[in-house]
Parts: sequence; structure tokens; C-alpha cells
Amino acid sequence: MSQNFETIAKGKAKAILNAIPEHWRLNIAIPPADKQRDVTGKYMQQFLTAGEVEITETDAVGILEHTTTGKWSARDVTEAFCHRAAIAHQLTNCLLDIFIDVALEHADTLDAYYHEHNKPIGPLHGLPISLKDQFHVRGAETTMGYVGWIGTFEGQKGTGKERHFESQLVTDLRQLGAVFYCKTTVPPSLMSPETHNNIVGYLFNPKNRHLSAGGSSGGEGALLSLRGSPVGMGTDIGGSIRIPSSFNGVYGLRSSTGRLPYERTPNSMDGQESILSVVGPMATTLRSLTFIIKALLSMQPWLHDPMVIELPWRDEQASRLQAMSEKLGSSEKLSFGVLRRDDVVLPSPPVRRAIEMVVKALENAGHEVIEWKPPPHSRGLDIAVEAWMYEGGEDIHNAFGLSGEPVISHISRRYGNKPVEQKRASDIAANNIARRKYRKEYLDYWNSTANLTHSGQSVDAFISPVSPYGGTRPNTYHYVTYSTIINVLDYSSVAFPVTHVDKNVDVVDDGYVAANPADKQVSESCKYFPN
Amino acid sequence: MSQNFETIAKGKAKAILNAIPEHWRLNIAIPPADKQRDVTGKYMQQFLTAGEVEITETDAVGILEHTTTGKWSARDVTEAFCHRAAIAHQLTNCLLDIFIDVALEHADTLDAYYHEHNKPIGPLHGLPISLKDQFHVRGAETTMGYVGWIGTFEGQKGTGKERHFESQLVTDLRQLGAVFYCKTTVPPSLMSPETHNNIVGYLFNPKNRHLSAGGSSGGEGALLSLRGSPVGMGTDIGGSIRIPSSFNGVYGLRSSTGRLPYERTPNSMDGQESILSVVGPMATTLRSLTFIIKALLSMQPWLHDPMVIELPWRDEQASRLQAMSEKLGSSEKLSFGVLRRDDVVLPSPPVRRAIEMVVKALENAGHEVIEWKPPPHSRGLDIAVEAWMYEGGEDIHNAFGLSGEPVISHISRRYGNKPVEQKRASDIAANNIARRKYRKEYLDYWNSTANLTHSGQSVDAFISPVSPYGGTRPNTYHYVTYSTIINVLDYSSVAFPVTHVDKNVDVVDDGYVAANPADKQVSESCKYFPN
Repeated sequence: MSQNFETIAKGKAKAILNAIPEHWRLNIAIPPADKQRDVTGKYMQQFLTAGEVEITETDAVGILEHTTTGKWSARDVTEAFCHRAAIAHQLTNCLLDIFIDVALEHADTLDAYYHEHNKPIGPLHGLPISLKDQFHVRGAETTMGYVGWIGTFEGQKGTGKERHFESQLVTDLRQLGAVFYCKTTVPPSLMSPETHNNIVGYLFNPKNRHLSAGGSSGGEGALLSLRGSPVGMGTDIGGSIRIPSSFNGVYGLRSSTGRLPYERTPNSMDGQESILSVVGPMATTLRSLTFIIKALLSMQPWLHDPMVIELPWRDEQASRLQAMSEKLGSSEKLSFGVLRRDDVVLPSPPVRRAIEMVVKALENAGHEVIEWKPPPHSRGLDIAVEAWMYEGGEDIHNAFGLSGEPVISHISRRYGNKPVEQKRASDIAANNIARRKYRKEYLDYWNSTANLTHSGQSVDAFISPVSPYGGTRPNTYHYVTYSTIINVLDYSSVAFPVTHVDKNVDVVDDGYVAANPADKQVSESCKYFPN
Repeated sequence: MSQNFETIAKGKAKAILNAIPEHWRLNIAIPPADKQRDVTGKYMQQFLTAGEVEITETDAVGILEHTTTGKWSARDVTEAFCHRAAIAHQLTNCLLDIFIDVALEHADTLDAYYHEHNKPIGPLHGLPISLKDQFHVRGAETTMGYVGWIGTFEGQKGTGKERHFESQLVTDLRQLGAVFYCKTTVPPSLMSPETHNNIVGYLFNPKNRHLSAGGSSGGEGALLSLRGSPVGMGTDIGGSIRIPSSFNGVYGLRSSTGRLPYERTPNSMDGQESILSVVGPMATTLRSLTFIIKALLSMQPWLHDPMVIELPWRDEQASRLQAMSEKLGSSEKLSFGVLRRDDVVLPSPPVRRAIEMVVKALENAGHEVIEWKPPPHSRGLDIAVEAWMYEGGEDIHNAFGLSGEPVISHISRRYGNKPVEQKRASDIAANNIARRKYRKEYLDYWNSTANLTHSGQSVDAFISPVSPYGGTRPNTYHYVTYSTIINVLDYSSVAFPVTHVDKNVDVVDDGYVAANPADKQVSESCKYFPN
């Protein structure tokens, strides 16, 4: 370390601000959270022109309807999102990089292409896409939240790959016509449901700045909440796409493994394959997720990433479900399990209310909902935690050690302040077997629901809280089982917004007798929300 | 150990013979190999009726054409194969169990079903299928070649699962209408390209009894060679389906992982997931493999095995390739890479001749063949060997230790006589990364062949020797890279027969200067074939 980590971190934080043009700087003091709790919506709009508001409050599909038909230029769209993202960052510190000139230059080439050929370059022509600061993109650096990665390539200097090497997913999106303009903040190592690093600090929720924006794709969540991006790319090994989607009222997809390319994207504890992280989109509408996935699969990612399965988008399956959900076939209805609680923790009141809203909506639409009583999720969680600890935190502590920065508290809660003993091959094998058996037991349970539904078919999907929390204050997100169980099972899962917490409605039952400390912590979590 | 391992092993060997009815016993002394080198074909036929020969020399698809239309009874077919397998075992010791009564009883229920419903119970109605003695099947035990597994369930007594528990693959085949009648011999642990155990001894090749039948699905190979089975199920982690297919002149499929159910099938070093073993069929014709795979996929195995991918048989792909291979579209031709040698070992003369025969056949059919020059296979092999050694042989030595039997020499060659130190989590992670990078490099190479073909498309497949050997004397199969590279890459691969060794044609070049000891060993391997 030639420089103090704080100097490097401050330099980086300053460079992000400096990358914002003078005329986009907020020359006001940002009011504190208790004066201005919510900086989304109207509050954000005051800093923008009407045209910018129109563009940035259009979803990805809507934007593409304009950019692929020449109605909006890529430059105008890119500039509007750059501006809004720049404001978003000044309000919440949600970015770890912004590169407006690179983005606008790229947008100009797209406009020139459209002008010359009178057609879009691809299905994502001129769509700005934000990237979790884990993806490599040409023209920017990747920190993954570590001070020690600043000015390096994955912690190494002089590799020649700096600002040049690109993740396969990013290259694919680029070929489809997307424009990149910013990297969003993450907790170092990504192994946290909250977002805090030593570069830009703790990420608060733009909707309620007393609370966490979630993590680890927290910067994406906050930026989308502020409409500083129409679509962002995140990753998820225990809920890292879905938790910030849930906390920020946006949509997030955690596909099963082997569906989208992770190739050339760095990760923590790379090579740990028992519970694999996946990449996935987050967006302000559901149709945007669908559109992005279809576009990405059209690139045949299996030709560029050996971990991706050769499996195109299956239109016939999508259409069949769509028809059933629209009741086009009168006798055919969908059926759903509903997980009202797992075996350890009762979700907090607002989450319970949201689940009941979903159940009612499904039943009102004519679908069947049955109780979901699967094998204990606590057993599944143990498998994930074991996998996350295989190498005792060596990789993570090495990365913190690069700069000498202190270990962020919600990382040290799991990984301590130095590596612990590694697992042996036979421990890992035993955990793989446990995971396979758990998946088998769960699959058998799923099949058994055929005995419970009117159709005599097993349920089509199950509904579950993403998180037991309606929100969390900093450093209080402890219970991850609701999201992590999906990673253990390797199911596809989509997080979608249902409602907001309402303190007057979602009243904590003071008489509730918690079954265990985790249950108590969750049941009381809303109690301490600031007004 | 209450009993000496030899007593237990001899008891088991005797029980197999005793399970053969008196009138099927060969009351002749089996001539030694130098008197009767080849016991297939005519030699085998002398022990059978003309009707039995007709049935047993019909392939699986042909048999099913008869059994699913009522032309042949399941009983007659089953009995014929039981008889031929019983003879095969007496000639070669290729079985570890035969259960004729169970099989005939099952066949009778199938005949009764057909009689009552005038239709088959499923697409495999009445088809006898042999099982590598790794699969569990109701009514029989599984030894996996270990003396210590005799009279137990996977080495444990009193589990209640003995002779009752069944592998998912077997249950699926049973539901499709298949009949089970025997278990075929394997090397203990299955981690060998040869088949030798302390129960029934060394498995020689029925075509040339001086040579090895290959392994680890060697019993399947020998039984198929002798036409004691129309289809057998094997497993493959480094060539264990393809090597015995190659040595016995039959077809064998190693599908990619996640295609067929391994659920409820025991394995060595279970939980090692870097290089996964797969299950697959071996058969006397190519169309039999196709038929079995289609039938198995029709069972939707992903509903019963969480490791199986939801991916039905893709008719459109099969038809497209079929059409191209038949030159129906005149301009569309297939293109192939041909691996004439890897970076370490030149295949022996008969293998080189077989490869040239395939190349000529493809070119004569109008297809294009280009040289296959991939990333060095030796690097790939290192990754597999590392994965096989993760836990230092602990599982294997524990299993040998159950009975105190000595470690078979071609197992101890790799695993020694006691466990060695296990690998740590970060070693395993590093190997997983190496494997991913190797796959990526190979994939990029494959894509690059688009620059070399006339069509401008990358090759459709590549042709490679399964083994550098035309055959091996016992304990001399040393070089496994040709088959194992496929497991490292996780490609689908089919072994098919091309020709036989001909000492007059496949002359060893005495002037050949071997590049290394492995190369020398292979180049000279045919030299020492007995006449």
C-alpha cells in the first residue's frame, strides 16, 4: 500500500462526483432524512426537465418502442438517464462510477447507425442499462466494493485488462444495442443483504432514507427506485437481486443457474460451485424483465459461456401460461402454493399483508391457492451457509487486505476479521449430497401437491415473501432464509412489488410471543421505523 | 468382519452360478484362451436353440417391434436372454448377479397385461435390460465390485433397503416396460478402465480372451458382445461407458450431465461435483440408443431427479441432422473435426486406421472433415485427475476396508493402498475455475472452426478415438485422456464400432520414435497381442 486506504477511497468518491458535469451538480445541501425522508418521485422530478421526466419514467419496453422506431434518439434517452442517475447519486451515493462521455459517444454511434440504415442495430437499440459494480465494462473500472480494487483489474495492477476487459453479459447487451453509463454500488464481496462500502458509505433507501436499500445489488435497487435507470443487471447468490428489488419496489429475476452468462464476471469465492451465483435483470416493470431475457437468449449465450445450457426462450411455454393466466381456456386455471411463513420466522406485518393481497388477487382471478408446507427451510439455509464458508473467508479477507481497509460490519458478522479454517474435500462432498437430498425432498413435496389441487396437477409456482422484513434499519438485516432457500433449490424466482408499508395498518402485535430470537427480531423490525 | 473376505467373495461367486438352472450349466470344461480365443458368435450359438439365437441376435428396436405387437411374448424374450447371459457368464464371469425367476415372473405379468389390454404397457414392453452392478434394482443386491457390499445395502447391514431400494433410472425403465434379469461386473469403485474385482476375477474380452474387456462398465461390454443383452445401462466419469463399448464392438452413449437420472444410484466419492459421472445406455445398434433415450426422456426425469434439466427430446434437431446427413438438402452438408492424435499420445495403428475409415466414409457421403487442433488435452486430463483425488481416496479405501479385501492393482495404481491428504476448499475452487477456463478455451476453439469450413459454420461434431488402444492385455490400460477429455468438457459423446484389429494390416512401425513413455506404451501395445 503506497497510499492510505482512506485517501484512495476518498479519491474515488470524489472522482465519481467529478465525472458529473458542473451544470448537473446539486448546488443545494441535501436535507437530512428526517426532513426529507423520501427523495423519489416528485422530489427527484424537481431537478429535471419535463422531457427528461417523460423519458426516465417510461419503462424499458416503452423506451425501446421509441428508440427502435426513430421517435427518440439514443442520445436524448441516454442523456436523460445520465442526468437522473447523476442526481440519484448525489442524493443517495448509489453509484461507484458514471461515464457520461463514453455513454453519449456510444449513443451517437447508435443514432448514426439508425440514420444510415433506417433501422435499429438490435432489439435493445439505445436502451441505457445500469450495471452492478461487479460487471466489467469497457471504459470503466470495477471495484466490487473493495478499495483495493480501485485503479486495478480485480485487485491487480498492470494487467493490461484495466478498463478494457468486458463481461460476456455486457458484451451481449452491447451487441443488442444497449448503452452503458454507470456502475452501481455494492457491499465489498457482495455477501450481504445490505449495501455499505468504504468508498461511498452506507446506501440508504431512497423511499425512506432511514432504512436500508437492501443488497447486494443495492445500488441497482436504489437507482431504479429513483428512475435513474430503466433496467439494471445484478447478481444473486442468496437474495442479492431480489432483496433490493423488494426494498425498492421494483422487479427482479433470479433465473436458475446455467441460463445467463456469468463468463468474464468476477465474483467472491469464485470456484465455489455448490451454491452458484446467477446474473439477472432488475427493472421497473415485469415486461422489461421478459424483454431483456428474450433478447439475451437470442444471443445464444451457450456459444460464449460453457456454463450456459443450450436452451432458447420457450415461447410455447410462455404463451400457454399467459393464456391460462388470462383464463382463455375456461377450465384451465393455474394453481399456486403460498408460503405464509417458514419454520423459523413469521414475516413482519406488512409482508404478511402483501402476501394476503397476492393470494386474494390470484383467487379473484380464478386461480387456486393452497398452503405451501415444504421441508423445513432452516435445513436448506444450513447448506448455503456451509457453502459460503468453505474456504473460511480467505478470498474476502485477501481482498479487504489489498488496501488495509476495515471489514464492513455486516460482512465481518459472517466472516469475522480474519480467515478461519477451510473445509476439506469430504466436507464439501457431504454438503453437496445434503443439498441434492434436500432438493429431492423438496421436489417430491412439490409433486405431492397434485393431491391437493382441484386440477390434480402439482402447483405451477409458489408465492413467498422475498424477505420477512418490510424494511430494515442499517445493520439489522439478519434473516436471509426466505430468499436464500431459492438459491439452495436453484429455482427461478421473480421478485415483484405489491404494496408499501403503512405504519397505521401494519401494526406490530405487542402480544406476539416470538418463537426464537430471529423471530423476535423480525416481528419487532417495523416497530423501530422512524416516522 | 465375522468372515474372511475370500469366503464371502467365493460364496457370492458360487451363488451367481447356483442361480443358473441346472439345465443351463455348461457341462464342459471351458477351453483356455489360447485354444479358444473368441467365444462370441458361432462359439456361443452352439449352446442355444435356433429360436434363442434369433431372439438374442435381434436388436432392442427389433425386439420391441415384436413384443409391443404381441408377436413375441415377454417370457420367451426374457428367457432367451437369461439363457444366453447365463452362458456368457460361464464363459467370461461377466455377471455379479442373475435373477431369472424374478425376471420371468415380471415377464409373465407383462404378457398378462398385453393379453388383457391388447396393447403394450409402455414403449419398452418386454425388453430385457442388463444393469451395471452399480444400479439398485428390486429383488437383487448391488456390490459395486466390493466384497464388503455383499449382503448389505451400500456396505451397511440392516438398513431395510437391501434388495428393495431402486435407482430412479431403473424404476423409470421398469415403468416403460423393461425387464431386469442380471447385474454386470465392475471394478470396485468403478474408477478404472479395466474390470477386475475380488468376487469374479478379471474380465477378459469375449472376442479375444487374452485381452481386457475394458471398464468400468466392462461387464456390460462383454455381455453385449456375447449378445447376452440387447441394451445395458452403464455409467461414465472418464470413459467407463465408451471404453468397454469400444473394446467390445458395441454402441455407448455418454450424454452430458443433467440429462438422465442418477438419483438413488450409489457412486464412488459421491458429492464430488467438478467432474460428474453420468448414466447412459450401451447397445448393439445405434438406433437402440436413440430409442432408449427417447423413452427415458418421455418419463420427464426432471420431475424425479433434481439434477436433471427440464429438456425433452428435441425432435426438430434430430430430424434436421438426419436430413443433412442424408443429403436431402443438397447444399447443406455436415462438417466434422477429426482428432487424429492428441498432444501426448499417437493412437495405435488399428485405431489410426479406424479413424481414417470414418473420415473416408464421411467424405464419401459428401461431408466436410477438417483437422481438429484443440487446446492441449493433457491440460484437461490434469483437471479430471485432480477432481478424482480431492478426498485422497478415503471413500474407496473405506469401502475396500469393509471386508479387508486387497485393493485391486489398477485401483491402487491411482489411489495407493491407503488414503492420502485431502484437498482444501480453495484447491477445489481453483480446479473448478481451471475447468471452466478450459471449457471456455475449448468452446472458443470450436467456434473458430467456422473460419475453416466451406459452410462458414463451426463443425457439427468431432471424431476422436475413444481409446488409443486397439485392445490391452490385463493391467496395461494406462492412457485415459482420449475418453476423459469428454468428461472434462461435459460434451455428449457416442462410441461406435468401426473395425477390428488385424495384425497383418495394423503393423507396428518398429522405427517409430515415441515422444514419451505413454506414447511408447501405446505404440507398442499391439505388438504383444497374442496370436
